[in-house]
Amino acid sequence: MSIPSTQYGFVYTKQNGLTLKNDLPVRKPKSGQLLLKIGAVGLCHSDLHVIYEGLDCGDNYVMGHEIAGTVAAVGEDVTGYKVGDRVACVGPNGCGECKYCRGSTDNVCKQAFGDWFGLGNDGGYQQYLLVQRPRNLVRVPGNVSFDVAAASTDAVLTPYHAIKMAKVSPTSNVLMVGAGGLGGNAIQIAKAFGAKVTVLEKKKEARDQAKKLGADEVYESLPGSITPGSFSSCFDFVSVQATFDLCQKFVEPKGIIVPVGLGAPKLSFDLSDLALREVQILGTFWGTTNDLDDVMQLVSEGKVKPVVQSANLKELPEYIDKLRNNAYEGRVVFNP
Amino acid sequence: MSIPSTQYGFVYTKQNGLTLKNDLPVRKPKSGQLLLKIGAVGLCHSDLHVIYEGLDCGDNYVMGHEIAGTVAAVGEDVTGYKVGDRVACVGPNGCGECKYCRGSTDNVCKQAFGDWFGLGNDGGYQQYLLVQRPRNLVRVPGNVSFDVAAASTDAVLTPYHAIKMAKVSPTSNVLMVGAGGLGGNAIQIAKAFGAKVTVLEKKKEARDQAKKLGADEVYESLPGSITPGSFSSCFDFVSVQATFDLCQKFVEPKGIIVPVGLGAPKLSFDLSDLALREVQILGTFWGTTNDLDDVMQLVSEGKVKPVVQSANLKELPEYIDKLRNNAYEGRVVFNP
Amino acid sequence: MSIPSTQYGFVYTKQNGLTLKNDLPVRKPKSGQLLLKIGAVGLCHSDLHVIYEGLDCGDNYVMGHEIAGTVAAVGEDVTGYKVGDRVACVGPNGCGECKYCRGSTDNVCKQAFGDWFGLGNDGGYQQYLLVQRPRNLVRVPGNVSFDVAAASTDAVLTPYHAIKMAKVSPTSNVLMVGAGGLGGNAIQIAKAFGAKVTVLEKKKEARDQAKKLGADEVYESLPGSITPGSFSSCFDFVSVQATFDLCQKFVEPKGIIVPVGLGAPKLSFDLSDLALREVQILGTFWGTTNDLDDVMQLVSEGKVKPVVQSANLKELPEYIDKLRNNAYEGRVVFNP
Amino acid sequence: MSIPSTQYGFVYTKQNGLTLKNDLPVRKPKSGQLLLKIGAVGLCHSDLHVIYEGLDCGDNYVMGHEIAGTVAAVGEDVTGYKVGDRVACVGPNGCGECKYCRGSTDNVCKQAFGDWFGLGNDGGYQQYLLVQRPRNLVRVPGNVSFDVAAASTDAVLTPYHAIKMAKVSPTSNVLMVGAGGLGGNAIQIAKAFGAKVTVLEKKKEARDQAKKLGADEVYESLPGSITPGSFSSCFDFVSVQATFDLCQKFVEPKGIIVPVGLGAPKLSFDLSDLALREVQILGTFWGTTNDLDDVMQLVSEGKVKPVVQSANLKELPEYIDKLRNNAYEGRVVFNP
Repeated sequence: MSIPSTQYGFVYTKQNGLTLKNDLPVRKPKSGQLLLKIGAVGLCHSDLHVIYEGLDCGDNYVMGHEIAGTVAAVGEDVTGYKVGDRVACVGPNGCGECKYCRGSTDNVCKQAFGDWFGLGNDGGYQQYLLVQRPRNLVRVPGNVSFDVAAASTDAVLTPYHAIKMAKVSPTSNVLMVGAGGLGGNAIQIAKAFGAKVTVLEKKKEARDQAKKLGADEVYESLPGSITPGSFSSCFDFVSVQATFDLCQKFVEPKGIIVPVGLGAPKLSFDLSDLALREVQILGTFWGTTNDLDDVMQLVSEGKVKPVVQSANLKELPEYIDKLRNNAYEGRVVFNP
Repeated sequence: MSIPSTQYGFVYTKQNGLTLKNDLPVRKPKSGQLLLKIGAVGLCHSDLHVIYEGLDCGDNYVMGHEIAGTVAAVGEDVTGYKVGDRVACVGPNGCGECKYCRGSTDNVCKQAFGDWFGLGNDGGYQQYLLVQRPRNLVRVPGNVSFDVAAASTDAVLTPYHAIKMAKVSPTSNVLMVGAGGLGGNAIQIAKAFGAKVTVLEKKKEARDQAKKLGADEVYESLPGSITPGSFSSCFDFVSVQATFDLCQKFVEPKGIIVPVGLGAPKLSFDLSDLALREVQILGTFWGTTNDLDDVMQLVSEGKVKPVVQSANLKELPEYIDKLRNNAYEGRVVFNP
Repeated sequence: MSIPSTQYGFVYTKQNGLTLKNDLPVRKPKSGQLLLKIGAVGLCHSDLHVIYEGLDCGDNYVMGHEIAGTVAAVGEDVTGYKVGDRVACVGPNGCGECKYCRGSTDNVCKQAFGDWFGLGNDGGYQQYLLVQRPRNLVRVPGNVSFDVAAASTDAVLTPYHAIKMAKVSPTSNVLMVGAGGLGGNAIQIAKAFGAKVTVLEKKKEARDQAKKLGADEVYESLPGSITPGSFSSCFDFVSVQATFDLCQKFVEPKGIIVPVGLGAPKLSFDLSDLALREVQILGTFWGTTNDLDDVMQLVSEGKVKPVVQSANLKELPEYIDKLRNNAYEGRVVFNP
Repeated sequence: MSIPSTQYGFVYTKQNGLTLKNDLPVRKPKSGQLLLKIGAVGLCHSDLHVIYEGLDCGDNYVMGHEIAGTVAAVGEDVTGYKVGDRVACVGPNGCGECKYCRGSTDNVCKQAFGDWFGLGNDGGYQQYLLVQRPRNLVRVPGNVSFDVAAASTDAVLTPYHAIKMAKVSPTSNVLMVGAGGLGGNAIQIAKAFGAKVTVLEKKKEARDQAKKLGADEVYESLPGSITPGSFSSCFDFVSVQATFDLCQKFVEPKGIIVPVGLGAPKLSFDLSDLALREVQILGTFWGTTNDLDDVMQLVSEGKVKPVVQSANLKELPEYIDKLRNNAYEGRVVFNP
């Protein structure tokens, strides 16, 4: 594989926002590192939070945190991967050494906090990415395209992790608030876990899509026939106070609320209701390396089918505008 | 045992508050029921919430929810207990038939919600209590006095349940906010689980007591040497916004906050912090029948020594005034 | 509902085995009890173990431990059920008072050991059954027939409980050894939990049936392409030494072996393999009340479809002979 | 720190057993590796199994698997450790990349199977050890000597891991069969978890020691006052058929048996008892990196005090003979 010495890519700085650069260096992998040729990289609302809303993940890095591609070069002492391997990046990019990384929780590694792929550390809005810790890669099965794999690293991984953490099972009665990109995948995942899935969604198109994806019941607003205290877990992909209040009202005793969305800086809960009914509020973040392995398996087996469209990476700025204006549905990935 | 046909006791009504009555009937146990001769009954802040702050648990019942005593009579078909058995009441008084009662979670039984001993249903501020469901009794070991047993049914049971739910272990680093009645027992319980315990408490006397009870570190305010994100679980026995904020700041990634106190109607959390560090907020309520069995074992073995003083039940009104004015420390129980 | 005073039924005694009696009393429910009109009752290999192989569950009782029917009369103080309710019996018949019954594990209640419905205590091979503890009933959904409900109380409940205990999930890789009555239902249940299911079965007909029921791979003997140490859990519905050895060989590190069958009095394991790979051997018995509620939900939703044939209860002796001779497939239930 | 180019050490080969070599190379750490100056290294029964009983962990390596010492040199790109750091080795030496190492279970890493420190891979019976994966080190607290740290890496870690896996708590009733080196530490650990500990031990000296270490009850054989089915978990440090049978007899329903010892190649269990009482047999192996971090914390806090004696590494052959002849009690470590 012939590797150029420079490349184009989109660099984020606090001063200038996201800017196309045509002379980015292609870095050489040192011992223990490897170089990834980007096959596909996804766009996500978190990118907007960084660019337009001041979410602070550092300064001066290549953005793009949903990444899949091919190993293009390996440094000395890399034993797990060889040139040509198809892989995807585990965004949280854990250090691999601390108790969190050793303990099945590398997604909350303190050392890697804010050093995530494409959010603090360099990411995928370029042609080649230097991977410092190959531990944070998983293999992409042969029947999974890079487009699908890239989208899976966040829009599937995040709801998978949340659903697994909430211990969903075939006797679970699940409420999903919001059925956009993540919510749509969440429906499929919860069905793969065997649960009954009720969806609450304001947009007509998304409701229609939710039904196609397997939701058992889909509503614009919950009907009176559904009594408060009847869902074993509530996943809030919106997470503003109104949706969170609804989750607390409709979750059953011993039930779990996962505010997956980040729609408000703060949320409040009713304390005596939380206590007397032993409700649990569970923060979940992205997913672990083992979770992404699981996700690739589910996608490969057809249990989850992420809806993805693709475009050329040079078109990124136009799609960012579209995403701000809600001018497309589903998930878009870019091929550099 | 000679059983009178009437007795005295304190009845709560919404109209008149708590009132001494001298002609309460001593009810006869029907099939499956039993009659308990009260040995000791404890006073708790929850009583104040009902009487003075409008906490609604129904109308027209005998209050007193921390109860221990002797079985005085058994109805037909009661096989588990006989006259003379020493027992204590499990306050939540579960129905025994639903999925919660069958499932190790009878403390959140929907059928029994607001039908708790002394809070909705009749309780212990009288001489004899009719127990409709003997399932909601546990045996009091021979070396545990009724005074201690009564206090244990709430002031030990509640923190035990919370600490068990939070999966405290010998490598846990626990923060206790508030070291009053429940907090003081919580210290002993967390030490019985092997944890390191740090206490934050405003009152000098309570801090001194916390040290005696085994706390490893006791502070009026947390020193700079303790870094944010360092406690595996935080038990907030105050639960106002300031203490809850402190818990969220000092809990570690994957850590658990249990707002045991009910100091504010609503509490708010920082959403992105909760999500990115996967913090868990866990509501816990009183305890289960099996928990109270465990508590009796711990108390019997001397692993937890509740601090209790006693008085005559007729003195109840004076002690309610004292409790409102914070005019005594620890826990008081009454002997009818 | 007109209730006769006598009935026919099949009584087991150690001296005479199973005998038809035409003058059995129909007992009247006392306080807290209820009378069940049997709608269907299933035949199971365990019956053969009692009658022909000396499995000791007491003497002189009506056999039949897979029971569904209609509440025909209720004693005083029965609040949970009324005449006409459709219910099924939870075989282990827990006492309802001990730590096991309180703790989501009523299937191993010590007090009820050997006092199970139809195995020690009276069961369903009769027209009316007195239920001493209505706690040990669950409701049968309207769209589930008594025939299916009866079969579900053991042939679905037992594998459901085992699969739930083994924490099967969509990323589980499960081996089922034996695909007879329980094994066939186990396939459907494991698929409802989202797992990949591989079946090992000697009989051609049962292998064909296994494929129809959703098994991903079905073998007469495991092919070389399946490497040792590759299944996350192995359910052995045969449980002789040869099948158990195979399970230990093919289970992965940290994997679970559940010997569901009772094919041998003793089984041996390789100790250093068990230790070095941290394999777990898990005994499981029938199921709990909450499990049977779950099972009724899964059956009602069509996630599990037990294969059942029915006959008149008077034909029981002929079917016992057929079962001894393996002369029918699947599960048979009887209508009294 | 001046590092010699050669050293002495004890090499195991299948042909010659354990042999002292005076001209072993001191290897230089490559990128990502580090060199450890051995401070102390422990002797264990497993060494005897390799040398005298044919336990196969490969050929031609330096033995010694309980290792603590000082970082003497670090290769390029080692960021977690610097020269002078005090560390101990996590024996199972996981690869760090697989699902087991990522998932809090690096002790059963398939890639590292039989590539353990001192058992397959080079170990500590030498002066300097090249550590290929510094991930498999933990820090030794300042108040813990190398002698104690080395002994803790197996004789404390193994029982800690077993006790943690068995979820021991303050209400556990634990049986320990055998109170030798591991069993003695197990007593202290179980007490740190708050459990009640009963010890069964044939040797008078070990029984006396068990009492000193905190055991609640110590017996040469179990008295009639202890009823079968009464222990929540049984740890068998002997693991021959007789001790295992005793564990199955005395464990309670839903209880756990951990055969920690490796006294017999195979063990058999009573199948119907295992099933009907839902007993669990749990294989456990050594411990994980996070477990050893926990162990160092417990030892540093004084919750566990391993009994250790030390000798010069050159005396190793004499101590191996003594160990074969049971000629000393407790644990011995060597200083090179």
